[in-house]
Amino acid sequence: MTKTAVTVLGLGAMGRALAEATLAAGHPTTVWNRSADKAADLVDRGAVRAATVAEAVGAAPVVIACVLDQPVLCEILDPAADALAGRALVNLTNGTPDEARRMAEWVAGHGADYLDGGIMAVPPMIGEPGALILYSGSREVFDRHRTVLDVLAEGDHLGADPGLAALYDLALLGGMYGMFAGARHAAALVATVGGDPVRFVEQRLVPWLNAVMPALSGSAEAGDPADSPVAMQRIAIANIIRASREQGLPADLLAHLLAPIAPPTDPQITDDVRRLADLTIG
Amino acid sequence: MTKTAVTVLGLGAMGRALAEATLAAGHPTTVWNRSADKAADLVDRGAVRAATVAEAVGAAPVVIACVLDQPVLCEILDPAADALAGRALVNLTNGTPDEARRMAEWVAGHGADYLDGGIMAVPPMIGEPGALILYSGSREVFDRHRTVLDVLAEGDHLGADPGLAALYDLALLGGMYGMFAGARHAAALVATVGGDPVRFVEQRLVPWLNAVMPALSGSAEAGDPADSPVAMQRIAIANIIRASREQGLPADLLAHLLAPIAPPTDPQITDDVRRLADLTIG
Repeated sequence: MTKTAVTVLGLGAMGRALAEATLAAGHPTTVWNRSADKAADLVDRGAVRAATVAEAVGAAPVVIACVLDQPVLCEILDPAADALAGRALVNLTNGTPDEARRMAEWVAGHGADYLDGGIMAVPPMIGEPGALILYSGSREVFDRHRTVLDVLAEGDHLGADPGLAALYDLALLGGMYGMFAGARHAAALVATVGGDPVRFVEQRLVPWLNAVMPALSGSAEAGDPADSPVAMQRIAIANIIRASREQGLPADLLAHLLAPIAPPTDPQITDDVRRLADLTIG
Repeated sequence: MTKTAVTVLGLGAMGRALAEATLAAGHPTTVWNRSADKAADLVDRGAVRAATVAEAVGAAPVVIACVLDQPVLCEILDPAADALAGRALVNLTNGTPDEARRMAEWVAGHGADYLDGGIMAVPPMIGEPGALILYSGSREVFDRHRTVLDVLAEGDHLGADPGLAALYDLALLGGMYGMFAGARHAAALVATVGGDPVRFVEQRLVPWLNAVMPALSGSAEAGDPADSPVAMQRIAIANIIRASREQGLPADLLAHLLAPIAPPTDPQITDDVRRLADLTIG
């Protein structure tokens, strides 16, 4: 049986991993990247390099896009809009729910189907057990092209609203960044007294996080971590901040510490955190 | 063999759990609390209620203190200083490394030994498997009174510097608060589209955190979570913040998001985070 042809737009670390997985599974694979030289070794392994986005889109019924962000995707798809009719765009580019919904509308306006996806994996995990992609949008595309999608990662379709995959993806990433911020702060504190940060994380922090992990679902709802009274938590957090200053830690490591127990209505805390959130990330 | 007599100062949720554990293990236990009525049911179970702190301190060779914070402990111990000579003070009150070191000096000045401790457990865990207390300060006290300490929790002596236990305790708590902050943000994001926060945390977030946990030790050192290029992470974090605003989330849930990848020298981020860290916790 002939395997479905696939096009991959974007050959960053993740796009390359996706193209490698479809190639390895025997799917005829067309690739496109703004700087063409990134395609060279994929071509050696059997990929076809398209000269333009329109040519790439026209080469396969399934077009997987994985570029830097949604504005970049809009920019590269715009001149190729006429080639989209009858195809399925599987958009694995990181973005917000609103961006996914707008992309779905634009794609539908050019006669194509749309499936949005959020990749819960780093590039080396693609095609390996443990990789997960959250999808939303066209259930029909998800079912029809399941054999292609399954070579990338386990797939989980969350619903017809194209924004759902982005929302869950960003929620999980936000959860991860919280854990990493906490670990970075903890390791930095231990390093100030000569402790080995890596050994500390592996031997003390990871077992401790596993021990308190069962309290996570309750705290997510109540904002009341670890069954501790809020008064006690405020004292502990104040002590963490004071100890960090005593040890000369840079203040940006502390940003997460004020978030967990501050009620959204506490004006003393909300104002300053809003200033933090209003930063432009450049 | 007669069991070592123990005094417990402070009968908040944690102090009560400590006194219950020593009572249950058959140690003659004297208790003191500022409001005396909190001792009533412990007295029914065999504890002796001391009328003053000096009387409580004089009643046992091991005095375990677990009160609200270090200033409170200073205040209640001051009039009882003369009773301390020859005793061992085991201070399980949450505090900073400097506070522990100052307390150790003050206690030594009154002829007593000092062991500081950080409790890595919530009150219901005391005396149960999984509870851990980090100790620092007098190794001799730790060894001599090991049978008492072991009824509270597994003990781990980190070194002679009395500040070490507080530092590791606060580091681990900071790590925990990072994880909780991330979970709270993730769950709030999912709730904006009608998702059940508890089910989301249990079925999606916890498995995801476990999947990325192995990258924690590397990120603690390098500040580069999950093997992703920093450019990609900046885009993901910007998308999390934009999506959160689109969904109307209160800004204080976002505080942790800027911490993980901002290098300490990035002035654009450091300034605003410093304002955040400069808040007084009331």
